[in-house]
Amino acid sequence: MADLADIADVGRDARRGGYSRHGFDRVELELRAWFTEEATRRGLDVHPDRNGNLWAWWGGPGPDAVVTGSHLDSVPGGGAFDGPLGVVSALQAVDVLRAKGFRPSRPLAVVVFVEEEGGRFGVACLGSRLMTGAIPPEAACALTDPDGVSFGEAAHRAGFDPLRMGRDDAALASVGRFVELHVEQGRGLTVPVGLASSILAHGRWRFTFTGEGNHAGATLIEDRRDPMLPASRLVLAARRAATGGARATVGRLVPNPGGTNVIASSVDVWLDARAADDHRTREVVALITEEARAAAAEEGCEVRVTEESYGDTVHFDRGLAAELSSVLGDVPALPTGAGHDAGILAAHVPTAMLFVRNPTGISHAPEEFAEADDCAAGVAALATTLEHLAR
Amino acid sequence: MADLADIADVGRDARRGGYSRHGFDRVELELRAWFTEEATRRGLDVHPDRNGNLWAWWGGPGPDAVVTGSHLDSVPGGGAFDGPLGVVSALQAVDVLRAKGFRPSRPLAVVVFVEEEGGRFGVACLGSRLMTGAIPPEAACALTDPDGVSFGEAAHRAGFDPLRMGRDDAALASVGRFVELHVEQGRGLTVPVGLASSILAHGRWRFTFTGEGNHAGATLIEDRRDPMLPASRLVLAARRAATGGARATVGRLVPNPGGTNVIASSVDVWLDARAADDHRTREVVALITEEARAAAAEEGCEVRVTEESYGDTVHFDRGLAAELSSVLGDVPALPTGAGHDAGILAAHVPTAMLFVRNPTGISHAPEEFAEADDCAAGVAALATTLEHLAR
Repeated sequence: MADLADIADVGRDARRGGYSRHGFDRVELELRAWFTEEATRRGLDVHPDRNGNLWAWWGGPGPDAVVTGSHLDSVPGGGAFDGPLGVVSALQAVDVLRAKGFRPSRPLAVVVFVEEEGGRFGVACLGSRLMTGAIPPEAACALTDPDGVSFGEAAHRAGFDPLRMGRDDAALASVGRFVELHVEQGRGLTVPVGLASSILAHGRWRFTFTGEGNHAGATLIEDRRDPMLPASRLVLAARRAATGGARATVGRLVPNPGGTNVIASSVDVWLDARAADDHRTREVVALITEEARAAAAEEGCEVRVTEESYGDTVHFDRGLAAELSSVLGDVPALPTGAGHDAGILAAHVPTAMLFVRNPTGISHAPEEFAEADDCAAGVAALATTLEHLAR
Repeated sequence: MADLADIADVGRDARRGGYSRHGFDRVELELRAWFTEEATRRGLDVHPDRNGNLWAWWGGPGPDAVVTGSHLDSVPGGGAFDGPLGVVSALQAVDVLRAKGFRPSRPLAVVVFVEEEGGRFGVACLGSRLMTGAIPPEAACALTDPDGVSFGEAAHRAGFDPLRMGRDDAALASVGRFVELHVEQGRGLTVPVGLASSILAHGRWRFTFTGEGNHAGATLIEDRRDPMLPASRLVLAARRAATGGARATVGRLVPNPGGTNVIASSVDVWLDARAADDHRTREVVALITEEARAAAAEEGCEVRVTEESYGDTVHFDRGLAAELSSVLGDVPALPTGAGHDAGILAAHVPTAMLFVRNPTGISHAPEEFAEADDCAAGVAALATTLEHLAR
């Protein structure tokens, strides 16, 4: 029986707490090996696709398959559930179906997408974006981690050919319907299991403020061009702009060179912004950008803004959600502020998400949690879903 | 002839630009080996002291020696002159004195202090503080670098015994007068060479803001306790508080865990604050601390403040400065906002500093610069000074 406990010791982050598991790093490769072994033991055929995602087939591959799965990577210092719960639940659902002697009339697969969090290379859902053509392979392969290693290089080291990456119509055509099970990431669910209705429009923007590096003691205040000042004003502007259900967050800010007695010469700030629709998200980001530019100008600094990723609002397939709701017994549907590979797939195939209740709403942090009974209810709901769709 | 060009390739920082040379790292150890070789070639006896500082003796060691020197470490991404100019100029001054057949009637020494910038272990002037007892050896050895390596461990790896570190009365007693040559770090000098009158009171304070790590998309704005907000307000409060010649700077700020799509669970912010005297410095820091506490409380966060280092205003020995001024031909005296090992020594022995003009005032940055003619004038002034004092 595959369980989260099996991988509880893999990728712990002693400094931050929780887990740091990133696409194609040593830890994620270990988790992929674990998945391959677990899936193979169940008689599933495991094959990576050209973009670094892992597929475990029961029958097939494809066409018109019922596919479920999630990811094994985490944010830096993340929780145990975000990603792995969907993978482990998929394996457990296969066990449930096997135990009851179910024989699918369509192929069934469990998929593990690579670098869903963008915790290493900065763009979320990299594996599903590559597969669906939502990001050009050249752009993906040029992304670098904090050590300067490119995604292309990391993929190559993991045995993938960067030149063969990119939109994979064969893989996409094999998928009839996609269902991702995931821990809920707010406190929106008061019963063990729910369905997703939509994902907020969301994106990441990088603001690079440039000033003049200098000595923190010897430089007169009036002679300074300190980029930390407009960077800080951006953090506060983001909070002010996030009204009416919109979210704007700075969780990553890096002054360069980063010495205590040194006025920074530049500061990189990453803005994560989300809102109900494209128009509102763009409006929030425009407001923040305007304030950032004004603050930079006031301090004699420059600012360069780069959109690192963006995804419009995702509305999950209503027909599929209604079908699952009736099979699962009228479970609630709720929107989410979190992005998912299912959100990328939804543009191409009928897609649904099952959420498992999160009692505190905490996610992307070591305290992320779901009760064992709720996780079991998630597995049962996923097994019922797969059985219904693959019957 | 020892020259800055000899070490121009040692410790370059490809990412930040300039140099990253830190106490007991591979680069600083290479620079120490270079210094040992250069000093030995001049017939000086090189010995480290118990605290990791290097002494090169012409005669002696001590008592009543005339000692000059500086440091070889840098801030992260620092310039070529801050520190090494004083060491190289000392070796060149020895060459000048040797060439003219000078025979000192007192011992003369060139000293290299370890970890002057505090760029690795967080406390500036660590070598001179240890030697003078300004920091307890247990406290110094417990300081850690960003990788968690303690100063004690780094010293041990470099061949020093942490248990033997601490106030070194024998070394102190050997010093009659101390003179440090240094590149000026503002634009206060309009002639090639000047003398220091005083160093601002200055210190470093670490503010740790703690909130609640969570998902940047799924967490409603009203449910957040985001420590980036009070951290940013601290940056702005520091600038507002730095009036009337005081300086307050945040050049180092580290959100934890530091993911783009993660609300930080905690943020460490380092404040560098300096002012003309103790009272004013304390006042500035108190003002900033008060704003930081209020901002933290408003956001439901906690803040813990730690004084990492502090040094009161240093007034250099007036008699020695007057003596040198007459010997050097009425050079100007100026205060500085930058800390130096000379500032630590000044509490124990008559101490002076020679400054070499900085045409742009930029320091602690790759653009730090001094003209070759001004550097030569510095060497000449230092040679004259040593000759006068050791005659």
